[in-house]
Amino acid sequence: MAPRSAKRPMTYARSGVDRAAIRGSLQALLARVHYRPPPTHGRPISRPGHYAGLIDVGRETIAATTDTVGTKVLLAQALGSWAEVGEDMVAINVNDLASVGARPFGFVDTISCSKPEPAIFAEIGRGLDRGLRAGRCALLGGETAVVPEIVDGIDLGGTALGFYPLRRRPITGERIRAGDALIGIPSSGLHANGFTLARRLLKVGRVDLRARRAATGPSIGLELLRATRSYVAVSEALADAPGTHGFAHLSGGGVRNLTRLTRRVGFELDEWPRIPPVFPWLQALGSVSDEEMFQTFNMGVGFVVIVSGARQSEALERLRQAGVRDARRIGTVEPEPGVRLPQWKLSYEGYA
Amino acid sequence: MAPRSAKRPMTYARSGVDRAAIRGSLQALLARVHYRPPPTHGRPISRPGHYAGLIDVGRETIAATTDTVGTKVLLAQALGSWAEVGEDMVAINVNDLASVGARPFGFVDTISCSKPEPAIFAEIGRGLDRGLRAGRCALLGGETAVVPEIVDGIDLGGTALGFYPLRRRPITGERIRAGDALIGIPSSGLHANGFTLARRLLKVGRVDLRARRAATGPSIGLELLRATRSYVAVSEALADAPGTHGFAHLSGGGVRNLTRLTRRVGFELDEWPRIPPVFPWLQALGSVSDEEMFQTFNMGVGFVVIVSGARQSEALERLRQAGVRDARRIGTVEPEPGVRLPQWKLSYEGYA
Repeated sequence: MAPRSAKRPMTYARSGVDRAAIRGSLQALLARVHYRPPPTHGRPISRPGHYAGLIDVGRETIAATTDTVGTKVLLAQALGSWAEVGEDMVAINVNDLASVGARPFGFVDTISCSKPEPAIFAEIGRGLDRGLRAGRCALLGGETAVVPEIVDGIDLGGTALGFYPLRRRPITGERIRAGDALIGIPSSGLHANGFTLARRLLKVGRVDLRARRAATGPSIGLELLRATRSYVAVSEALADAPGTHGFAHLSGGGVRNLTRLTRRVGFELDEWPRIPPVFPWLQALGSVSDEEMFQTFNMGVGFVVIVSGARQSEALERLRQAGVRDARRIGTVEPEPGVRLPQWKLSYEGYA
Repeated sequence: MAPRSAKRPMTYARSGVDRAAIRGSLQALLARVHYRPPPTHGRPISRPGHYAGLIDVGRETIAATTDTVGTKVLLAQALGSWAEVGEDMVAINVNDLASVGARPFGFVDTISCSKPEPAIFAEIGRGLDRGLRAGRCALLGGETAVVPEIVDGIDLGGTALGFYPLRRRPITGERIRAGDALIGIPSSGLHANGFTLARRLLKVGRVDLRARRAATGPSIGLELLRATRSYVAVSEALADAPGTHGFAHLSGGGVRNLTRLTRRVGFELDEWPRIPPVFPWLQALGSVSDEEMFQTFNMGVGFVVIVSGARQSEALERLRQAGVRDARRIGTVEPEPGVRLPQWKLSYEGYA
């Protein structure tokens, strides 16, 4: 297979995702939300823009996060394979809980569809079960809306809830300082991010989803569809360890996600691991810039742990003991704010 | 205005909502979800089919519930008025928390849309703020997905979280017994239920949304769009009171919702209040049966409190003190299971 390459570089915006428009609308909405509940109804302790909303309620701190699978469902539909996105529903949410060091305890799913098909729902359920198992949380409820006038196909989302066991405190990134080590955990593929761009690239390159990218291995379609890895085991292994300063789930926004943790210092990613071939292969389909690739896809690293330099070996050992054997150092925290990838001469200032 | 009447009676199923198909698909999904987390990750204590999922976590019991506004958004779109459905997003969810006596503390919203329009998002935000105020909870986060290939217009949903303050226990209906009094609290209109049928009836009757149903009052469109009343004040006033045995939010399924509380005994609704004229007016548009009306719409009662007969006056007094002055007795718990409306010779066995 020799995919065609586009003349003009493809971007996330040109593929149909206008980040500025989304940001503008979200700001318009949030500008109208003023209400703060009385302290008897909980005390929000969140920092805006972080991965999860945190609130002190009764004798516990609860974390909540919500996300949808987005246009990856269109790939599931094209391939007639739904378990992967069922698993994603949970994984994308519990990974955001893992980013604040919260232990997942519950999940509720939301399925909006044009027609309820039992065979598809059964496959989504199979994936949901896998996601709950990897995220170690219970299905507390859900909503199935059949709204053919609003939804074409299936829209999948959910909300995950976490708490802080024993003496654990929220891990927000405020203790991150220059000299800390960045430990990266590999992703399992694209996860559920950048699919509007990825699908556009497949179209530009006239790629057959059933073809293989390499001589061996799965079809392109199944390679892209692979379910999101859960990083709950990573967070649980390190959240209570001394020297753990931050966690970052590299979801939509790629490496820019690191700036959600702190802007006091910066992240020098000078030991980025070998990028899985599917990313440069996609990149070549539309002459996408390195800058756009690293701020749209995870490029092989799905989760980053920030630990004090002195605790790096101990952290890697704790991860091994928890069954996470593919973690490795990918960079260092430095005084200058932002995110830098010197190998690609890339530098990002903020999150979005 | 003299709306036309359909020859063949309209039903919820004929309007496009196939309850059996939804139930079948949901069962197919749930049959695949087997995972139960270890007790260190929370202990679910829910009864399936109740209003909210309950879980013991750390030192608290947390309740979670999720719901979408459904096709009512199409009315908002037709009228270009979005604050009402923004308020609904919160109200429909906190009312389900109120049904298990949980105190709301947090809400996360989910907006899936084809295009983010700041003016619409601002109005949704205005409604969201009202909903949070009435539900007394904080906005903990949200997700805005722009997915024009999946959603046409806007799909609105959310998840609400509650807890049990002090010595309050979940109110599940298990203490309901024959002789208990049923206290009804009026609804503020259709709330966000039955809109697929309501919109179909408007179409059958060729009703102009800008016309008025009565000589005075709002247009039909605005009357139907009115935001869902919050019953959090009702639940908070009575959840800690002796003799409070159950709460029921009459959402989709109408009076059938009462059977979600218990099937050991039954509900005799022999003092149903005057039905607000919008319901019989809608009913006449499509010759809808009384049976279908009471199992699709709230028919004027949005929330029911079940208290021991001896505590009825005390409960009404507590509600008055909390500012709820329109509550009144609507029936009695009797030994025979099910729900009965003797005035209309109606009888329902279960929920769906």
